[in-house]
Amino acid sequence: MAGIGYEKGRRRRSELLEAAFSRFATLGYRNATLAQIAADCGVSRMGLAHHFRTKEALLLAVLEERDRVNGRDFFVGSDPSVEPLDYLDRFARLIDDNAAVPGLINLYAVLSAESATDPDHPAHGYFRDRYRRIRGHIDAAFAALKADGTIDARVDVDNAGAAMMGLIDGLQVQWLLEPDAVDIGAQLRRWYRQGFGLDLA
Amino acid sequence: MAGIGYEKGRRRRSELLEAAFSRFATLGYRNATLAQIAADCGVSRMGLAHHFRTKEALLLAVLEERDRVNGRDFFVGSDPSVEPLDYLDRFARLIDDNAAVPGLINLYAVLSAESATDPDHPAHGYFRDRYRRIRGHIDAAFAALKADGTIDARVDVDNAGAAMMGLIDGLQVQWLLEPDAVDIGAQLRRWYRQGFGLDLA
Repeated sequence: MAGIGYEKGRRRRSELLEAAFSRFATLGYRNATLAQIAADCGVSRMGLAHHFRTKEALLLAVLEERDRVNGRDFFVGSDPSVEPLDYLDRFARLIDDNAAVPGLINLYAVLSAESATDPDHPAHGYFRDRYRRIRGHIDAAFAALKADGTIDARVDVDNAGAAMMGLIDGLQVQWLLEPDAVDIGAQLRRWYRQGFGLDLA
Repeated sequence: MAGIGYEKGRRRRSELLEAAFSRFATLGYRNATLAQIAADCGVSRMGLAHHFRTKEALLLAVLEERDRVNGRDFFVGSDPSVEPLDYLDRFARLIDDNAAVPGLINLYAVLSAESATDPDHPAHGYFRDRYRRIRGHIDAAFAALKADGTIDARVDVDNAGAAMMGLIDGLQVQWLLEPDAVDIGAQLRRWYRQGFGLDLA
């Protein structure tokens, strides 16, 4: 019986995460309300509070869940320093895949802008740390490719991670405004090729 | 006497634009209120309405004012098809200059994300059209540089405008989160150089 209750609780938690994802993605953190999110799942505010004590906790749980899913679907067993081309290829495939999930691009576009411009935003630290971490992975991949001669010694790879993340994030905003005008995956692969001589199919 | 009233009205209008700029940049369009903006200038709501009939009109006036100032300070007499290197150089100098005006970067980051994710946002059309226009200028500059042989014939310049705007916008979000970690002007000049063989000082 405990097992059934546990299973039901888990399902409820995941429904709440999905509803919160969708509200945060369309309204931003500040404008979304816990009352809406609870109502989306037919749950009371108390019921929501049982799973997530605060709106901040709910937001961070949504972001961590996305990182978990991306990690599981795209980066399991990947090490940017050891197999750098494989890592960059997985990244490009993740970007292709994201184009089928506009809500996800909404979520990151809205929350990263909201939190970047407000040091007190509950996701400010999350985004700062996330950018640091992913820039570190990308920089490690480019450093490895330069060290093993795949990238020409004269090519500058310093802070390639910031540029790559920037390119992707900025293109996503344009893509949201005009999907037909922007192919993010193609732009990323051209950036690999023209900027660094890396040809990834 | 009419002249003095006119001058006072112009000054008041420009104070309101400045207060609105600052509120929209920190709070976003949805969270900023006309009551706050009016109070920032010691004006009544009626006084504000005399200058800007709606919140939407105020937002669009703020954005148009910024475009006017950027155009005046950086792009007067510039034609990307005729003097493409000069245009790209001016663009890089604008980006360097923006780093001294974090409020401006806030404004575009917040409003572009807010409006990109909401077709009913009052700035949705503005941002879509602005990206189209600037992409068009950049694409024209790169096409001219390829046509006159400055860029090698084998280099792909299609949709360079989307990539360049994306790179800049995305880096701005990272810069807001961690100013010391990101040099947007340097990244842009490297993109010119490594992606297209253009060396701009």
